[in-house]
Amino acid sequence: MTTIPLGRFLWERIHQCGVDHIFGVPGDFNLTLLDHHTLPDSASDPIIRLNSAYATDGYARTTGGAGCFVTTHGVGELSALNGVAGSMTEQVKSIHVVGQTSRKMQQNRMMIHHSIGFNPDHQVFNDASKAFRVAAAELQSEEGATEEIDRVLRECFVKSRPVYIFLPIDLVDKHVPAEALKRPLDLSPVADAKKVEEAATAVLEALYASKHPSIFVDCLVQRYQADTEIRELVDKLAIPIYTSNMGKGIIDENHPHYVGLYNGMPSGPGVEAAYLRSDLHLVVGNLPSDTNSGGFTRQSPAEKTVAIDAENVTIKGKTYPDAPIKAVLRQLRTQLSPNQIPEVEIPKLPERMQEDDRDSKLITQSWIWHRLAAFLQPHDVVFGETGTAAFGLPDATFPPSTQWITQTYYGSIGYATPAAFGVEMALTRNAARGQPRGRTVLVTGDGSLMLTVQEIGNMIKHGCKPLIFVINNGGYTIERVIHGARQSYNDIVPFDYRHMLPFFHMPEEEARRNFHRAGDKAELEGILGLERVREPTQVQVVEVVMEAMDVPWRLATQIATRGPEAVREMEEAGFKVRQLQKVEG
Amino acid sequence: MTTIPLGRFLWERIHQCGVDHIFGVPGDFNLTLLDHHTLPDSASDPIIRLNSAYATDGYARTTGGAGCFVTTHGVGELSALNGVAGSMTEQVKSIHVVGQTSRKMQQNRMMIHHSIGFNPDHQVFNDASKAFRVAAAELQSEEGATEEIDRVLRECFVKSRPVYIFLPIDLVDKHVPAEALKRPLDLSPVADAKKVEEAATAVLEALYASKHPSIFVDCLVQRYQADTEIRELVDKLAIPIYTSNMGKGIIDENHPHYVGLYNGMPSGPGVEAAYLRSDLHLVVGNLPSDTNSGGFTRQSPAEKTVAIDAENVTIKGKTYPDAPIKAVLRQLRTQLSPNQIPEVEIPKLPERMQEDDRDSKLITQSWIWHRLAAFLQPHDVVFGETGTAAFGLPDATFPPSTQWITQTYYGSIGYATPAAFGVEMALTRNAARGQPRGRTVLVTGDGSLMLTVQEIGNMIKHGCKPLIFVINNGGYTIERVIHGARQSYNDIVPFDYRHMLPFFHMPEEEARRNFHRAGDKAELEGILGLERVREPTQVQVVEVVMEAMDVPWRLATQIATRGPEAVREMEEAGFKVRQLQKVEG
Repeated sequence: MTTIPLGRFLWERIHQCGVDHIFGVPGDFNLTLLDHHTLPDSASDPIIRLNSAYATDGYARTTGGAGCFVTTHGVGELSALNGVAGSMTEQVKSIHVVGQTSRKMQQNRMMIHHSIGFNPDHQVFNDASKAFRVAAAELQSEEGATEEIDRVLRECFVKSRPVYIFLPIDLVDKHVPAEALKRPLDLSPVADAKKVEEAATAVLEALYASKHPSIFVDCLVQRYQADTEIRELVDKLAIPIYTSNMGKGIIDENHPHYVGLYNGMPSGPGVEAAYLRSDLHLVVGNLPSDTNSGGFTRQSPAEKTVAIDAENVTIKGKTYPDAPIKAVLRQLRTQLSPNQIPEVEIPKLPERMQEDDRDSKLITQSWIWHRLAAFLQPHDVVFGETGTAAFGLPDATFPPSTQWITQTYYGSIGYATPAAFGVEMALTRNAARGQPRGRTVLVTGDGSLMLTVQEIGNMIKHGCKPLIFVINNGGYTIERVIHGARQSYNDIVPFDYRHMLPFFHMPEEEARRNFHRAGDKAELEGILGLERVREPTQVQVVEVVMEAMDVPWRLATQIATRGPEAVREMEEAGFKVRQLQKVEG
Repeated sequence: MTTIPLGRFLWERIHQCGVDHIFGVPGDFNLTLLDHHTLPDSASDPIIRLNSAYATDGYARTTGGAGCFVTTHGVGELSALNGVAGSMTEQVKSIHVVGQTSRKMQQNRMMIHHSIGFNPDHQVFNDASKAFRVAAAELQSEEGATEEIDRVLRECFVKSRPVYIFLPIDLVDKHVPAEALKRPLDLSPVADAKKVEEAATAVLEALYASKHPSIFVDCLVQRYQADTEIRELVDKLAIPIYTSNMGKGIIDENHPHYVGLYNGMPSGPGVEAAYLRSDLHLVVGNLPSDTNSGGFTRQSPAEKTVAIDAENVTIKGKTYPDAPIKAVLRQLRTQLSPNQIPEVEIPKLPERMQEDDRDSKLITQSWIWHRLAAFLQPHDVVFGETGTAAFGLPDATFPPSTQWITQTYYGSIGYATPAAFGVEMALTRNAARGQPRGRTVLVTGDGSLMLTVQEIGNMIKHGCKPLIFVINNGGYTIERVIHGARQSYNDIVPFDYRHMLPFFHMPEEEARRNFHRAGDKAELEGILGLERVREPTQVQVVEVVMEAMDVPWRLATQIATRGPEAVREMEEAGFKVRQLQKVEG
């Protein structure tokens, strides 16, 4: 019987799941594991990096599958925990492989470096991540190890959330049967055809019986890999389409039936009123966090709502269990009779509001997001880092097939830059598999970038070519608008961005060409017209100078949903706040 | 009755514990808490920073008391967890204040940003840190809150490890009696005078009965604030003194009775043999991790050992409980009759080994640590970051009153740079309290620095003046010597250090003066002679170019304790490994 080392099995098996790159930082307890790393795109050069949980998250979002990273026990494992928690709450498939101390060291509770205290329990780190994963393989023997690895890989995909694989260093070279790699590995959720049909039938009955149905598409559709199914479904339904901050881009915003981004009270003019005219809301893949629901003001009365969630369907309060979202959408697509769907007029929204500062020569919040959106091309992947970008970009319309990435629920600043590195790797993978390749467009702020700026060095080292827009507005504007607008705690350590690319070892001559600074609108226009910015072949950095006290209206209105006290504080600080209009559903 | 807001009580009380600076990053759930921050040195400008758990650790080590930092729930809290775990295992006093969501949000399990999933339990982050703290105040009412805060502050000092204070945002402005600030706050462990005397008497009896006693001083002496007591005791004892990697510097290495650093088999020539000639080892404040005991080869046979540990004393296997280290050392100092201690000749060690590469013009591992040590001045605080510096510097003799900081047990790379920022703040505090102020001398490596390099921006912003030596040897040499010497996973993203200070906003002209690059010994000599390097008034950076495959002998011999296989692998890779000599105790 042919055998292979367990470490080799692990990497090959993860590769079979569609993962071509592994992220991580070397450490004592993962070095030999890295030796077994034989993935095709990085056989002799595994990608070694910081903030690997974030990069893994970005990679997973853009491949549509999972990402994987490896750390050493303790120090690396805990450093990654915040990134894993983000993948947990945003439902992204992340595989965290931990190279642990040997079984003997664990059993004897030896005081090996990275352990905690006297007589240390080496599993305390494992305990710390329990709330931030859906499964873990805690390997203590090569017996049954391949089955256990398969079990958690499956859980990662079925539940679309992080899993852990803990591998003691002395198990890495233990042999397992090679044929375990040939065992079929099913990554789809179990779907009981009868229950799925029953749920779909009930959904259709509700739709057929309605007069003004609409569909609301949120982010979990994408997490459960049902993008194709939802797109085909909305085409057949031909009813008004709405989306959320997090679901933006799943349906082409230029689709003839697309109405707008509905975020409760802080929505664009007319959106809420249009949405509430429906007598049936088909809500698909909803993730109703405060930041994705206008501070819980997004309305969807139970008696008018048909919800297709990750694992079940709820119709006017009645739940149909064991109906996975992708299977239900497939069934709906097949079973739907378009002529039984009522014909609904697609609401026309009023023109976008004209802002007071529209004639400013300076770069304003009311201008920039639309301008950047006009610069986008199909297949681009666009990041709005938590901060003004995450609240500003949703105001603008993207081209078809744009992927929008933002950590709207978890909101960990510093996420976007390493995640953009992960996306660059994912685009390389996708292109190798014949998929169209767009650009990575990272829009971040000075306050967020400072947390993970070293990732730009990684991008340069690995020949990545993202476009990085850095909003330089002198600190944490998103926190200023919440509280303490002029308090020094919302200031940051300033960077001189001219020195950034050469600091990260881009040759000075190239760095000068690839760095751009926009002090006003005219300068930004000039930069956006440059060939090397439109079709980058190296990292491009554009510093965008903006006012500290200028905020996107969507951010100010989101804060305004907290009540009159919040509005008063914003207005006293000098922020402009649009009047909120409550529409009765 | 006068009342004050609970947030104000918190900061004032922490200040009463000797903490003059608070570290942290602003977030939604700590902004109003920061408003109450009224510590004298930073009343209107609280220090806002990244990696605040590390900075807090450095601050605590150099003040001899506690450090404190504040984060927002979830994202900030988890990001800091690895730093807190380091303070836990190294027994450093760290106070982590977490600004939580409101009690109502918690009770209603609202999907507030930074939470985990649907129907979120907001306390999952709190659960994750349980293994990395000795106490926590989980405040849910202003009733009893001041007592609960006092309880955990006391635990922080008595157990010399991290504590947490969880404060829901809606409690910050609740009022508590102002007189709670006048309640006495005792931070010393309870010491039963009778038990302490009994333990001390037994220690002295063993000492008086011995013929060749010696004393071994390790790091926990310092953590439990018994530096003065141990120094007075060794003067009275007049017996040979040894120390460890982590205990280095507590006793002046120029003390007439000081012999050397005993680290088991990887010790300097003659040290182990000298140590084992003792018939009684008085071992004080021992922390026997692998990296602090020569891979567990440091010998101290139970029948010859008197151990004074944090909370009790063990004499030849018999334990005397409830005898706190500081109280026992005080009692010993008082009770000791020096004329009853046998007169012991202080062993003379052979000359330091002459290395083959001593005539090299390049900067070598066998040369640099002694050279840097000769540059030090009394009252300097010296960091050896995990890597070659942590294993190299212990070979050299420091001047009196040098504080040596290294994270030898936890070993989280990236620790030293933010911790050095914490030390700079601590030195400011100490100077304001009339203590002598030396320089902060940070010795780090390129691989470690890249993880937390943005802290240098903080140092510049806050007018700090550390000396930063960066060993540029092209990657993770400490991992190369363990495994995969020439594997690309041990390479790093290179920095061009000339651009570092201007990137972090030091004016270009100043930056040019404050950056120095040493390509060989002669260049380093020149740099060390510069006035602005010897007496810095601004951040000074010295890039020290060294060979990737050159390692300190202490590091190679530490790895060699793992066995012949490890030696073979090092030698095949081209590393030079000294012969280990096992001396029978």
